[in-house]
Amino acid sequence: MARRVAIVGVGYTKFGEQWERSLRDLSTEAGAFALADSKLDGKDIQALYVGNMSAGRFIGQEHLGALAADHAGLTPIPATRFEAACASGALAFKNACIAIESGRHDVIMAAGAEKMTDLKGTDAIATLMGAGDQEWESSIGLTFTGLYALIARRHMARYGTTREQMAMVSVNNHKNGVLNERAQFRYDVTVDQVLKSPMISDPLTLLDCSPITDGAAAVILASEDVARKLENPIWVLSTQQATDALALHDRASLTELNATRVAARKAYQETGLGHKDIDIAEVHDCFSINEIIALEDLGFCEKGQGGRFVEEGRMARGGEIPTNTTGGLKSVGHPVGATGIRQLADLTMQLRGNYGPMQVSGVNIGLALNIGGSGATAVVSILANPDAKLKR
Amino acid sequence: MARRVAIVGVGYTKFGEQWERSLRDLSTEAGAFALADSKLDGKDIQALYVGNMSAGRFIGQEHLGALAADHAGLTPIPATRFEAACASGALAFKNACIAIESGRHDVIMAAGAEKMTDLKGTDAIATLMGAGDQEWESSIGLTFTGLYALIARRHMARYGTTREQMAMVSVNNHKNGVLNERAQFRYDVTVDQVLKSPMISDPLTLLDCSPITDGAAAVILASEDVARKLENPIWVLSTQQATDALALHDRASLTELNATRVAARKAYQETGLGHKDIDIAEVHDCFSINEIIALEDLGFCEKGQGGRFVEEGRMARGGEIPTNTTGGLKSVGHPVGATGIRQLADLTMQLRGNYGPMQVSGVNIGLALNIGGSGATAVVSILANPDAKLKR
Repeated sequence: MARRVAIVGVGYTKFGEQWERSLRDLSTEAGAFALADSKLDGKDIQALYVGNMSAGRFIGQEHLGALAADHAGLTPIPATRFEAACASGALAFKNACIAIESGRHDVIMAAGAEKMTDLKGTDAIATLMGAGDQEWESSIGLTFTGLYALIARRHMARYGTTREQMAMVSVNNHKNGVLNERAQFRYDVTVDQVLKSPMISDPLTLLDCSPITDGAAAVILASEDVARKLENPIWVLSTQQATDALALHDRASLTELNATRVAARKAYQETGLGHKDIDIAEVHDCFSINEIIALEDLGFCEKGQGGRFVEEGRMARGGEIPTNTTGGLKSVGHPVGATGIRQLADLTMQLRGNYGPMQVSGVNIGLALNIGGSGATAVVSILANPDAKLKR
Repeated sequence: MARRVAIVGVGYTKFGEQWERSLRDLSTEAGAFALADSKLDGKDIQALYVGNMSAGRFIGQEHLGALAADHAGLTPIPATRFEAACASGALAFKNACIAIESGRHDVIMAAGAEKMTDLKGTDAIATLMGAGDQEWESSIGLTFTGLYALIARRHMARYGTTREQMAMVSVNNHKNGVLNERAQFRYDVTVDQVLKSPMISDPLTLLDCSPITDGAAAVILASEDVARKLENPIWVLSTQQATDALALHDRASLTELNATRVAARKAYQETGLGHKDIDIAEVHDCFSINEIIALEDLGFCEKGQGGRFVEEGRMARGGEIPTNTTGGLKSVGHPVGATGIRQLADLTMQLRGNYGPMQVSGVNIGLALNIGGSGATAVVSILANPDAKLKR
């Protein structure tokens, strides 16, 4: 049997427009935060797994594994970059888990970073379209907001999801982000403000969209033997991944992300858990519609009922499944390669039970959903603290 | 103990300038070749691991794992892209091995691909510098030939390595490549031709440099249980990786690549083998000087003796350690993300013992060295056929 894996240290930088800092600064800082949190030493780190989407285009730098090891003073340990668009972070994490499961390493740092603001806005938008299908989507001028607008329109037409319900996702996540001192946007917005903000791609307005962000996040993973000697290990019960067609027109449906459904089914099967066992979730709200679809595809509500679920506040703090309680991509920001790791770092802090004003009480099992592009990649991870009552 | 892994299928496309074909065409073709070679079916493939350096800049396309799974008709299986500059292919391979070792999968396709000729030459050169240090090297106008020229000059000054010895690397690899029908350049060159070819970065001339290439390669990996039911499994004895400082000025020495030395030491330790046990090698001759340094760092000769070793033909067919017998990066071509997989595919064919006119007789254990950038990443893999007499 594969060995068990725990998260034993987490950290992330301030997210936002960080003109004065480089990708290497941000990565090193996030790693240092996670290392300090773990009480381990740099020499304990046996490998470095780095998630990044597009530093080649954002800052003219590939080869980010070696760069991160170099600047953290960790050479000659193995260091590799993992990429699946906005799901790059979760895949660095997943592959690090596998390396510990295999027995190859006992302690690994999995990090994610993106420095997006060095490009001007239109170039950043073109760069992000590298996550879509170059031959069929970006080549005809589609943007990512455009892709999700098509998905939103279809969801509205098929299930009666309303514009206001989508806006409520942003309202909830901004409200949560006010509490998060590392979030990019720490202010409340109203449904009316979301609806009246500038139209980006009908029906999605500016406040339906996650921002362009600089930031980095890191988690330290350890084998069971190491983790049991440290405080507060949070166990990785499962991390599963699935793919779908890159271009929207090749999908069976526009109103669900099949990759999420497959990855979630595998994670639930592996753990013996169902959606009702999940106490808290971090999901991929790159655009408001995507949180609604995620709530459905993860099984928290029936397909087509996500809008109503949001409207009834069932994903809010104190609701059935508190979601994006630290602000989500909308408020914390979305440095694409870092987001998957940031979600896991936040979930870990929640499951430890001492996350200050952000803490949701009584949470033992958490789920993170990190999505690449318009859904061609999805990664579902389930974490638990030692108090969780598990079936397996 | 971790499970054993075997290579059970290999394939690669024609390498060269392929104006009429896209990255997705090349990737799918290489995968189909490897699948046919394995006698397995597409539905047997449980995950897809893709090495690619810089498709974001070369063709405006990231998210290559999902793209490859999509175009091969393999969704929703997990698919991820791995990047460490020119060592991206070997890292897709290494991570696939780990996933089988862990028990997570039994059959994985590891592929590598790069489509480089869609950019004009100067843009391609700038893109390749993403493998170096953006802040300290590319920002001041250094090119990759420039980096290796600095290494070559230092090696010449310290050890008396001659310009002619470097040229002999190209002569040998072109001679081997004549036999390889998938090679980009199938013609002999002479020392005189190498020396008189256009100067790129003193002392390296055009014929010291590997070319800009389009191409893709794939290998299919299987667990021991699966492999034993198939013909001709080639066992992966070890695959090890190490890092070094990204910028040359931060290295302890310019005349060795410490990452190669560390990775080789780990691979020799893991297998209980020494350099004398290796029957055949594929090494990373992105520039002629790099093969000389590789022969030293892998232990095939003493440090500083690589030039003489080449001059005496000890790395040629029929020499002590036949090296790059299928043409190397110089003659086969160097589609950067594909090269690490192409080396392993060629080594596998040699170890099977029926590689037509390219076959080197009596080879049972082979080594591949794939290097990222100017040496900030190195991956050493050791393969063996069932006839190999192993100590462990």
